[in-house]
Amino acid sequence: MPSSFDQEENLALDKMRSNIEKLSTYDLQGFLVLGSNGELVHLSEAEKIEVYEMGRDAISSDKLMIAGTGGQSTRETILLTRAAATAGADAVLVLNPFYFKGLMKPEALKQHYFAVADASEVPVIVYNMPGNSGMDMDAETLLMLSEHTNIIGMKDSGGNVAKMGAIRKRVKPDFQILAGSAGFLVPAMSVGACGGILASANIAPAQCIAMHKAFLTGDMAQASRLQLDIIPVNNAVTKKWGVPALKAAMDYIGLYGGPARKPILPLDAATKNELFKILDEYKIKS
Amino acid sequence: MPSSFDQEENLALDKMRSNIEKLSTYDLQGFLVLGSNGELVHLSEAEKIEVYEMGRDAISSDKLMIAGTGGQSTRETILLTRAAATAGADAVLVLNPFYFKGLMKPEALKQHYFAVADASEVPVIVYNMPGNSGMDMDAETLLMLSEHTNIIGMKDSGGNVAKMGAIRKRVKPDFQILAGSAGFLVPAMSVGACGGILASANIAPAQCIAMHKAFLTGDMAQASRLQLDIIPVNNAVTKKWGVPALKAAMDYIGLYGGPARKPILPLDAATKNELFKILDEYKIKS
Amino acid sequence: MPSSFDQEENLALDKMRSNIEKLSTYDLQGFLVLGSNGELVHLSEAEKIEVYEMGRDAISSDKLMIAGTGGQSTRETILLTRAAATAGADAVLVLNPFYFKGLMKPEALKQHYFAVADASEVPVIVYNMPGNSGMDMDAETLLMLSEHTNIIGMKDSGGNVAKMGAIRKRVKPDFQILAGSAGFLVPAMSVGACGGILASANIAPAQCIAMHKAFLTGDMAQASRLQLDIIPVNNAVTKKWGVPALKAAMDYIGLYGGPARKPILPLDAATKNELFKILDEYKIKS
Amino acid sequence: MPSSFDQEENLALDKMRSNIEKLSTYDLQGFLVLGSNGELVHLSEAEKIEVYEMGRDAISSDKLMIAGTGGQSTRETILLTRAAATAGADAVLVLNPFYFKGLMKPEALKQHYFAVADASEVPVIVYNMPGNSGMDMDAETLLMLSEHTNIIGMKDSGGNVAKMGAIRKRVKPDFQILAGSAGFLVPAMSVGACGGILASANIAPAQCIAMHKAFLTGDMAQASRLQLDIIPVNNAVTKKWGVPALKAAMDYIGLYGGPARKPILPLDAATKNELFKILDEYKIKS
Repeated sequence: MPSSFDQEENLALDKMRSNIEKLSTYDLQGFLVLGSNGELVHLSEAEKIEVYEMGRDAISSDKLMIAGTGGQSTRETILLTRAAATAGADAVLVLNPFYFKGLMKPEALKQHYFAVADASEVPVIVYNMPGNSGMDMDAETLLMLSEHTNIIGMKDSGGNVAKMGAIRKRVKPDFQILAGSAGFLVPAMSVGACGGILASANIAPAQCIAMHKAFLTGDMAQASRLQLDIIPVNNAVTKKWGVPALKAAMDYIGLYGGPARKPILPLDAATKNELFKILDEYKIKS
Repeated sequence: MPSSFDQEENLALDKMRSNIEKLSTYDLQGFLVLGSNGELVHLSEAEKIEVYEMGRDAISSDKLMIAGTGGQSTRETILLTRAAATAGADAVLVLNPFYFKGLMKPEALKQHYFAVADASEVPVIVYNMPGNSGMDMDAETLLMLSEHTNIIGMKDSGGNVAKMGAIRKRVKPDFQILAGSAGFLVPAMSVGACGGILASANIAPAQCIAMHKAFLTGDMAQASRLQLDIIPVNNAVTKKWGVPALKAAMDYIGLYGGPARKPILPLDAATKNELFKILDEYKIKS
Repeated sequence: MPSSFDQEENLALDKMRSNIEKLSTYDLQGFLVLGSNGELVHLSEAEKIEVYEMGRDAISSDKLMIAGTGGQSTRETILLTRAAATAGADAVLVLNPFYFKGLMKPEALKQHYFAVADASEVPVIVYNMPGNSGMDMDAETLLMLSEHTNIIGMKDSGGNVAKMGAIRKRVKPDFQILAGSAGFLVPAMSVGACGGILASANIAPAQCIAMHKAFLTGDMAQASRLQLDIIPVNNAVTKKWGVPALKAAMDYIGLYGGPARKPILPLDAATKNELFKILDEYKIKS
Repeated sequence: MPSSFDQEENLALDKMRSNIEKLSTYDLQGFLVLGSNGELVHLSEAEKIEVYEMGRDAISSDKLMIAGTGGQSTRETILLTRAAATAGADAVLVLNPFYFKGLMKPEALKQHYFAVADASEVPVIVYNMPGNSGMDMDAETLLMLSEHTNIIGMKDSGGNVAKMGAIRKRVKPDFQILAGSAGFLVPAMSVGACGGILASANIAPAQCIAMHKAFLTGDMAQASRLQLDIIPVNNAVTKKWGVPALKAAMDYIGLYGGPARKPILPLDAATKNELFKILDEYKIKS
């Protein structure tokens, strides 16, 4: 879920809390705070901890709180991971360090993730997000990371389903592969993903849940239909227009969206209208 | 299917014919001659026509012959398309021109494909193959191309299933989306692909057919299992080691593989052993 | 230099000959026929040979004719190389095979280039053109190729001057490094390039020669000034708008440009005007 | 310059100070603290400020201190910029935000940089570093940024000299274009760069200064020779092996290198030996 800011770009924890409360009426298994759409990279260390704490307070104990804690250094990642665990996160989602791309060879990534997993009191989920990080961890690397007992799963936002399948085939049975986007939840599940962490679940929670259930109950025709239906709206709030579109959509349906922090600009009026049209076509309010 | 060469790299049409005959005992819907693995780019114009003609002669009339005819110029593509149709191809598979990448804007691609489709006596299938062409046609472009009545489908080897779904959602109902690799056939079908054109069908035809059928009959558990099983072997003969591995695998199972044309080198002994081990694990001979 | 076509896209050898004659009044060291801008990939084998033959006939013996002969297969490349030598080319420019990118490891490239150089009666110049080929041969690979006695130089259109310098530092002294674009001729010469093969020399031969001479005579201020002056016009006829802009510029200054072969579209009217404005600012006619 | 850490990865300001003192005996114009090699992304906010303050204290007033202050949010960038100015930086070097690559359109970058430049008491230098950021700002964008009166220059580490020339041709005369690597200082100066901010200046300050002077005094032969000489060693401590190699080289020549923060691993023994051999060949100690 996105982090909420007021018009001065200050953290608006009450707005975020209100979003959590409204979304908690749906049968979602949990919430991710401070993922990519949570603008992890735009928050100070103190603000991150505030969000972890508010999140745990707002999210009922029967739902999971996953906390994004990946930083560029191992040191910072461990610090944030511990803070999230202290705040009550059930698991942490750790994006790989990527600034020094050329140096992030498998061995460096292994040592990083193993150090974090060793230091973490809660399970670790590896996060692969090539669109933002500019790096795509391959199957061999992800398999290597999966061998740590405290690394329980991965979220992949790259959409390479053949890679997910290659991992599924060889990984420990209880390792959780999670689709990183509602744009390919059903295809990912068809190669062994157990679910997803989906930005679109903020604006179409019922539809995401229905799609997941349709697959699990073996109703592929329905799963495929729901998958095709959600692709345009998911595309609008992720790849095409990103965070500001997700926030505008949340405002449109009665949640709090508000602004993203600069340099992310709000959508211009024409784009907003285009977005609302896509939402209307999808009957996102119903 | 691969084109066959003897040890001097001359076209060995009899070997290719023999492969077609052996593979025709399986319930495949047809054959693609002169796709990427058919080394289209390595054959002279005269050789291409020889392959089209041998192909039609060897492929029984109840099976489709699709012929790869995409060249860099519209002129060459039309010439090859006509030759393939004259030889008896049921459809042509047309890779986009890609040498002048920077100039291949949507309008140029549209004029190219429309000119080819206008000139073609047989239906045209658009071929998107970013791994080789270095270009990835997007959903908007592919949708634009689908509007021509003589363009009946597309083969996508990029593996972006969210894109396939986005196209499926908006394209004419009878437009055929075909998976370009056995590595993601089931995920592609879960977003509306009707089948695939698969290099792995040369070495695992029964398994490819079974996977396709399992999906169509709604047996997702079986479809997923077969999908996961085939990924390692498919990966070995496509992305990882490519054409020479596919040919070595064909030799291994009793078809004719033979050499690829240079500059493609044969697999070294160690890689070959690794490949055979993967094939054995997959029980590819059974 | 570009290949010339009439309005029906047929080869117009007389037009090309006329361009050669006009350009021969300048102190250029020679001509490249059938490079990227010569649309090598758009010509049939027979047409290529016609161009080699016309070229040698039109280019006086005191000027070099370099012929582009790089195909995707080693076999085709040798065939074209021999045809070019027979026609009287002084050297051949050989773009690397690139369709099977994943297989073009250093050893495959070495065997390819060495086979071509062994078979060639004339010296071979390696051509690296990442913008079109989608592959960038690195310093180690190029150094390996330079070890063949019949490989006398390289043309690099990628513009990575640090790479050129790294090669210059370690290569045999008489190996010729040639800038592949007028956009970085002076910087390339500052790291040891001896000259260039430049599309812009078709429309600004005097300026290209002056820039080259200014560097050689040690007048860096003048060399830099001419370099900065030519960048916008060079950018217009290469990266930005490519072949059709180069041809439109040739028409504009009294050479024959004519159309490129489809799928390359002619410039639209607005772009043409923008181009002419850039040419006028640069006083390209004077 | 690199930031210094002790074996526990704690900031070792005294080591960094000692490096500054030793390097100050050379005729360098100044120091950059907290650039890419300064591991800006690995330091906490408090640590960054400590480095700015130590830096100003250690760098004599006749030398410039440039401080890296680019963060992902405009807010953080302004905060760090102000802290650096307060600490006494002469200018700030601002890498573009890049995590939300898809959203970093020219208008977003313009608003970001203009907001930072408006808020900054000291001049701003734009930093383009595609190798780490995964984004390459183009000439048009950089020209747009150069229009702000408080944006006085740019450091470009991408090495695209044609782009530098295109900018030089059109930018305000006093705008400073700075080479971002010693691998292309001379070529960059040949298209109008006035100097560079060079990692290699930490280990070869005399050579970097000599290369710069040779160009300025018009001794191109010498400038080219020095340029070719430094390329292998520069390549070793930047693209090839990066920060840990730069630090190992500093240790080797009597400065303090020490470890980088994890996940950056130290060089293994074999690589270290290879590095030392390159340094020895270059007579880096002399």
